[in-house]
Amino acid sequence: MSEKKLIVPRKLSGFMELPPYKQVVLDNMIDKIKGVYQKAGFMPLDTPVLEYSEILMAKSGGSIDKEVYHFKKGDTDICMRYDLTVPLARHVAMNANEITFPFKRYQIGKVFRGEKAQKGRFREFIQCDADIVGLDELPLVADAECLALVSKVFEALGLKTLNHISNRNVLFGYCDALGYSLITQDVLTVLDKIGKIGKENAVQELVNLGVKQEDCDKLISITLKSGNFGEVLADISSLCTSELYQKGISELKEVYSYLKAMGVDESGYILDIGIIRGQNYYTGTVFEAMVPDHPEFLTVCGGGRYDNLAGYYTDKKMPGVGLSIGLTRLFDLLDQSGMLPEFKLTNTTLHIIPMGETLLECLKLQSYFREEVACEVNYENRSFKSKMKEANRKQVPFILIVGENEVQSGLYSLKNMATGEQWQLSKEDCLAKIQESKNL
Amino acid sequence: MSEKKLIVPRKLSGFMELPPYKQVVLDNMIDKIKGVYQKAGFMPLDTPVLEYSEILMAKSGGSIDKEVYHFKKGDTDICMRYDLTVPLARHVAMNANEITFPFKRYQIGKVFRGEKAQKGRFREFIQCDADIVGLDELPLVADAECLALVSKVFEALGLKTLNHISNRNVLFGYCDALGYSLITQDVLTVLDKIGKIGKENAVQELVNLGVKQEDCDKLISITLKSGNFGEVLADISSLCTSELYQKGISELKEVYSYLKAMGVDESGYILDIGIIRGQNYYTGTVFEAMVPDHPEFLTVCGGGRYDNLAGYYTDKKMPGVGLSIGLTRLFDLLDQSGMLPEFKLTNTTLHIIPMGETLLECLKLQSYFREEVACEVNYENRSFKSKMKEANRKQVPFILIVGENEVQSGLYSLKNMATGEQWQLSKEDCLAKIQESKNL
Repeated sequence: MSEKKLIVPRKLSGFMELPPYKQVVLDNMIDKIKGVYQKAGFMPLDTPVLEYSEILMAKSGGSIDKEVYHFKKGDTDICMRYDLTVPLARHVAMNANEITFPFKRYQIGKVFRGEKAQKGRFREFIQCDADIVGLDELPLVADAECLALVSKVFEALGLKTLNHISNRNVLFGYCDALGYSLITQDVLTVLDKIGKIGKENAVQELVNLGVKQEDCDKLISITLKSGNFGEVLADISSLCTSELYQKGISELKEVYSYLKAMGVDESGYILDIGIIRGQNYYTGTVFEAMVPDHPEFLTVCGGGRYDNLAGYYTDKKMPGVGLSIGLTRLFDLLDQSGMLPEFKLTNTTLHIIPMGETLLECLKLQSYFREEVACEVNYENRSFKSKMKEANRKQVPFILIVGENEVQSGLYSLKNMATGEQWQLSKEDCLAKIQESKNL
Repeated sequence: MSEKKLIVPRKLSGFMELPPYKQVVLDNMIDKIKGVYQKAGFMPLDTPVLEYSEILMAKSGGSIDKEVYHFKKGDTDICMRYDLTVPLARHVAMNANEITFPFKRYQIGKVFRGEKAQKGRFREFIQCDADIVGLDELPLVADAECLALVSKVFEALGLKTLNHISNRNVLFGYCDALGYSLITQDVLTVLDKIGKIGKENAVQELVNLGVKQEDCDKLISITLKSGNFGEVLADISSLCTSELYQKGISELKEVYSYLKAMGVDESGYILDIGIIRGQNYYTGTVFEAMVPDHPEFLTVCGGGRYDNLAGYYTDKKMPGVGLSIGLTRLFDLLDQSGMLPEFKLTNTTLHIIPMGETLLECLKLQSYFREEVACEVNYENRSFKSKMKEANRKQVPFILIVGENEVQSGLYSLKNMATGEQWQLSKEDCLAKIQESKNL
């Protein structure tokens, strides 16, 4: 073994791995999101990380997307999931007969995309999804449910966001009415990237598609309609009489009435016709939540309505609406911007420090305290001073010093590390002191 | 689209996917395990699912184990993790300078093994690991910590287990003293599988290795020593004078004294010299917890002490001790045996059922109740009767019926579905009724 060559320990780039004191914060965020989803009646689903390639690649007719992790095991063609929506579609199609619709499920799990590594992009990241799937039909109030959930989730996370809401039928209908129904999807793709490529380039691309100059102006001008939901809605509701456009308007009106009934704070959402969302499976409501104080965060949550979720797998019509939060990226942005709550180096409430030959007594005490609070005996072979220093550095709230005198008297030295207060108390009174302070 | 060929929705075999009402139970088990780990001062770590093959395959010198999922992405050789211990070793070696030792971490996550599919075997399964890693040295009290944790975890899960504990040095020392030090590992491998292959075959294999017949009997007889920790320890402590053997005995004695000090219930563990554990990285304490009422469950939790965790990646000596629960398999066994708590088809406490044109009012009420309890408006386009039937089937504890009269009077019909009681109350009183019943 002495001649053994060491392997340099390293991890793949683009894969987040947090030190435990940061992982605690991420886990807390997950718990909060889960709590909001659960209170709204969503139930958990956990689909496998691996799926048949044929299933995950249904939309591209089986050809494997470059960024998908893909391999063969024996004769089986396997992909790692790249989102949680396709596995949901597969699940509901597979279990349609057992499921009670509407099916409200949340899934919080890792997805994988072997994209080019770059700052702020992750190849493995946690998505926190909540979707409502109906059979044959799904009332628009479900869309409002999801929008309300977006507000609730970020409220729980303590993050001020603004949810930009639209309805695809508005732009689709407008585009159709201008006479471009054959290239609507292409036109929308260009409009979707105005922010990235700029207005001039967008116009050029539209012209290349065959859009008249004057129509370019109209199209761009309607995508800029954005602001207070009720006001923008009033502003644009008579802009176009096409049936599809008016369907979009009336859906927006209905959703808005639900949001108001639910008491969703109007400072948290706007109507923004420029919201298109790339994926062409969205068919109605679409939304993207951003952080107004940090526009560089871009979209922290997005989603919308899709009229036929599982169309690749079943003839049953399953309309759905959902939201997705890219948590790994959001956590990273918050961390980079110093916006995370203060890190605690330990979750332990009480450190017990043995002095002299009192380890067994300390273990007894540990069992006693652990019934109520997180507690550890500091049993390492180090000096008392260095143990106190460590407790200080880790900001352990309380320490209990157990020497031989303490064992004999049954009175232990408890120290509140934040205030410096110190007492000689029975274990019962020590516990009472600790719990009293936790309830403050 | 009408000519579209459907893809049959299916998932890979050997991958568990639970309906949400069962997933709730699994998630609850995870939360309980997490709670026990946290109270004992363990902090969470979440390593990536993917690692460099070179890292994961260090112990086999880079050659890829058949059962490991493995692929290339561009030029990079990648494996899916098959356990959580190797990634832990990589993590501590990589971050040794930032970590405060002893490093107590838990990790609950999926691991992947492309084994032959068979009943009760999973290719993707959740492991729940807790390990304590020291730098240079790690006191034996850490071993006792992990053993106590095993008891606590299964107590929290409500599962009666018996933890079979041993120390590898006992059998190693015994084997050495008999003169088989050159083939100790092989001898132990045979002894480890007596249960599977039977005593006769084991003797034959031992003889084939060069073990004398009389020594076979001695070896087999010591592996059968099993029972009350103190009694077996007294029985075997003078059986052999070899230094290694006596090291094992004295470690067992020390660990036992800690377990007693911690108050770990002695009906939950025994000394069982036959416990060897396959992996050759264990160097001291080893243990396997079983379910006495269900021996067919085999080992539901195992672990032990390894004196050099990260030896492939660093010259630093990092002794560790830990435990691992294969949760997916355990859940499946409990499910098959009808030992899981009763499934609840919903987590929702209150269903609000609109009658007539009261949807907006119902959404207001939903927001009000959701501040305190999980609540949903049943907004589907179905008859009142079918909604009541659904609430009944799902065992929703309470329903609130909101017709136009109720909206006008501000008094709503609340029904306790279990008792059949029904009241006409203000929303505040409804909430009080619900909370009162939850506290029963």
